[in-house]
Amino acid sequence: MSLSKKLGAEFIGTFWLVLGGCGSAVLAAAFPDVGIGLLGVSLAFGLTVLTMAFAIGHISGCHLNPAVSVGLMVGGRFPAGELLPYVLAQVAGGIAGAAILYVIASGQPGFETAGFASNGYGAHSPGNYTLMAALVCEVAMTFMFLMIILGATDGRAPAGFAPIAIGLGLTLIHLISIPVTNTSVNPARSTGVAIFEGGWAIQQLWAFWVAPIVGAALAGVAYNWLGKED
Amino acid sequence: MSLSKKLGAEFIGTFWLVLGGCGSAVLAAAFPDVGIGLLGVSLAFGLTVLTMAFAIGHISGCHLNPAVSVGLMVGGRFPAGELLPYVLAQVAGGIAGAAILYVIASGQPGFETAGFASNGYGAHSPGNYTLMAALVCEVAMTFMFLMIILGATDGRAPAGFAPIAIGLGLTLIHLISIPVTNTSVNPARSTGVAIFEGGWAIQQLWAFWVAPIVGAALAGVAYNWLGKED
Amino acid sequence: MSLSKKLGAEFIGTFWLVLGGCGSAVLAAAFPDVGIGLLGVSLAFGLTVLTMAFAIGHISGCHLNPAVSVGLMVGGRFPAGELLPYVLAQVAGGIAGAAILYVIASGQPGFETAGFASNGYGAHSPGNYTLMAALVCEVAMTFMFLMIILGATDGRAPAGFAPIAIGLGLTLIHLISIPVTNTSVNPARSTGVAIFEGGWAIQQLWAFWVAPIVGAALAGVAYNWLGKED
Amino acid sequence: MSLSKKLGAEFIGTFWLVLGGCGSAVLAAAFPDVGIGLLGVSLAFGLTVLTMAFAIGHISGCHLNPAVSVGLMVGGRFPAGELLPYVLAQVAGGIAGAAILYVIASGQPGFETAGFASNGYGAHSPGNYTLMAALVCEVAMTFMFLMIILGATDGRAPAGFAPIAIGLGLTLIHLISIPVTNTSVNPARSTGVAIFEGGWAIQQLWAFWVAPIVGAALAGVAYNWLGKED
Repeated sequence: MSLSKKLGAEFIGTFWLVLGGCGSAVLAAAFPDVGIGLLGVSLAFGLTVLTMAFAIGHISGCHLNPAVSVGLMVGGRFPAGELLPYVLAQVAGGIAGAAILYVIASGQPGFETAGFASNGYGAHSPGNYTLMAALVCEVAMTFMFLMIILGATDGRAPAGFAPIAIGLGLTLIHLISIPVTNTSVNPARSTGVAIFEGGWAIQQLWAFWVAPIVGAALAGVAYNWLGKED
Repeated sequence: MSLSKKLGAEFIGTFWLVLGGCGSAVLAAAFPDVGIGLLGVSLAFGLTVLTMAFAIGHISGCHLNPAVSVGLMVGGRFPAGELLPYVLAQVAGGIAGAAILYVIASGQPGFETAGFASNGYGAHSPGNYTLMAALVCEVAMTFMFLMIILGATDGRAPAGFAPIAIGLGLTLIHLISIPVTNTSVNPARSTGVAIFEGGWAIQQLWAFWVAPIVGAALAGVAYNWLGKED
Repeated sequence: MSLSKKLGAEFIGTFWLVLGGCGSAVLAAAFPDVGIGLLGVSLAFGLTVLTMAFAIGHISGCHLNPAVSVGLMVGGRFPAGELLPYVLAQVAGGIAGAAILYVIASGQPGFETAGFASNGYGAHSPGNYTLMAALVCEVAMTFMFLMIILGATDGRAPAGFAPIAIGLGLTLIHLISIPVTNTSVNPARSTGVAIFEGGWAIQQLWAFWVAPIVGAALAGVAYNWLGKED
Repeated sequence: MSLSKKLGAEFIGTFWLVLGGCGSAVLAAAFPDVGIGLLGVSLAFGLTVLTMAFAIGHISGCHLNPAVSVGLMVGGRFPAGELLPYVLAQVAGGIAGAAILYVIASGQPGFETAGFASNGYGAHSPGNYTLMAALVCEVAMTFMFLMIILGATDGRAPAGFAPIAIGLGLTLIHLISIPVTNTSVNPARSTGVAIFEGGWAIQQLWAFWVAPIVGAALAGVAYNWLGKED
């Protein structure tokens, strides 16, 4: 495929990740009596990736996440020359998804952003976890996310199933870590909504670029050893 | 297959979509203490499509939705000459599903339709969202639904997995948007239950024909560009 | 495989269906504050079938249900000569599963059977639905269950996916109908727990043999028309 | 693969099982208003295995559990000579996962271990179930877990689907049995968190080595008969 179609696919896919994942959190998580809760939000994030991996995996590889692109590059699966355009398309898609979400959410009487599903630590962590806990958590979660991605797309893994492993892997990560950081593991997702929340969400955004990228790069190194045939 | 068997399959499948999806909402969502909530309803809608796509996909393609048939036609996957009979079979199946649901639900002492899982906006939106928010939401959700369908059934996507991607994609759409419009993305589903609720549900029904079909047609155009090999 | 191994597989599989499905209802559905609710019970029932269909499908076909065996026989997929031994193995497995569940459940201080996940109508329906609603519901649900089974195991459906379609189909059926009858669609499951509850559960047991078998047989007839190549 | 890479994979996989499964329980199960409950914890445990089976199944077979290694050995699928190193790697990985979880969890103001997702019976069973109920439950659950593993990885089962069957099988087991023992079926998982809880968790740990291994070995014997072609 041409680079323009790859970037179009990354844009649309990250658009969906933010509209669907953050959208379920903003619109439905705490709906009175029958809200979907953190379990529903976890499922929604994972299903955005599962559905897009089946729909556009054959076009762009379906990264939807700068940390994933970095981890795949370190793991030798993605050319460094495409990293910057991929990341730009992902961030643009994330902002577009947050924008459409804002249009919909603000159509409710009495709307306030109330965090707008932004990621945070300390006083802005859902469970008031410290910056140190937040960094450890994001590094560990993104490390394992990339281990799943690198392993499930290995030529020796069953063909065709990677979107299920990866999508449900993201669901699992949210089941664990929403209380700690609201779960990022994805700088594009964090950036998309932070722009609409502003203030603290922008000030804390650095952590959700640094920690996921560190965790992803470490996984690239680790799988280069673990997964290599002797 | 002959057209009559295709239409029989679309009838049965849309019957199941309404009986199962709207049925879970009407019968089980708010059951005291242990009700399935919006998460359970979202799962139910998706599983009606997942199960039918495996069961009748080889007969009719398993559209179960006039917007899907339109989107596939625009995307060049479905002959225009079969559109009208498919839509009629889908609407008839949706009404039949709602009828059986009515028979079951009215067997509970003190039964009232209470919306009967109809779609609505403004005062009839579950979260009182405006008409504009409802239209944007339904267009965006149906657009992404068709992107998933067109991508996952692309010859380059993993074979056999499309029912999982599409069914769980519908689950995801419900996880996001039930609070906004009670989630349509499907004019046949909206029509089936609106007939039994009457009144406002019939008056607002136009929106759940127009928005899903617009979103689906846009996706047909978009995927014609995005998915085409260079 | 020899008939004795087929019957062993049906026994173990139906044992698991009752221990897992009814067990989740008895032990975990209403656990204080964090109970799994009807959504968790629905998932559990479906996963008993999904896991067994992958584990023993190649041994016995994994019916685990007299109505399924009847529906497959009417649909021309199962020899009439094996019907009776299959049904006996299924009922024996269901009783064994309920017995182990009883041993575990009665290890809690203050244990009472409290219905023991038995199926019922009228005053013994979870939502007090009438006998007529219960019969319509069980016939419709078992009809669709067999349509899913017959379609997903059709030679033209994607190979290998039938356990997912069928297992999640049973989850869907429970998401809809637990409030009506506690969901049977399976006479062996109903019989297994009714024996331990006794009284009303035995008196109402006839309905959960008749309705599922009628629904299943109708589906066998329907799919013989719908699924046949012209 | 070399033994060192197999052991590395077992370490990383069991690390993930404890960090993800026990982590979801400790961090998210009882989060105010929108907590994931026992259903979310059940899903998380199963998804740790599903994701790792796709990611490292081609490296080590993805046992992640001493009882699984024993059951596979009895079933003739795993060489006795690798049992001890596999078990040591699994226990080490479980402890490492619990350690990272401790670092994250203790970053919340007012943190207490509060059981730290340890397994227990009697006064330390979530529902106060007796030791006898706990032992029967763990033996039965591990027996069925190994039946699923042995069946789904049988050469006659659909290729590639085993991670789904096994992972969701572990979800199912948790949906049933968390109230009884907090669900072990895995001595490495029990050991990992017991070390951080100490006291009663260490004193009761024997039961969660004995019962899972007995259940697994019985399944090895049973499948040797049931699954053998005549």
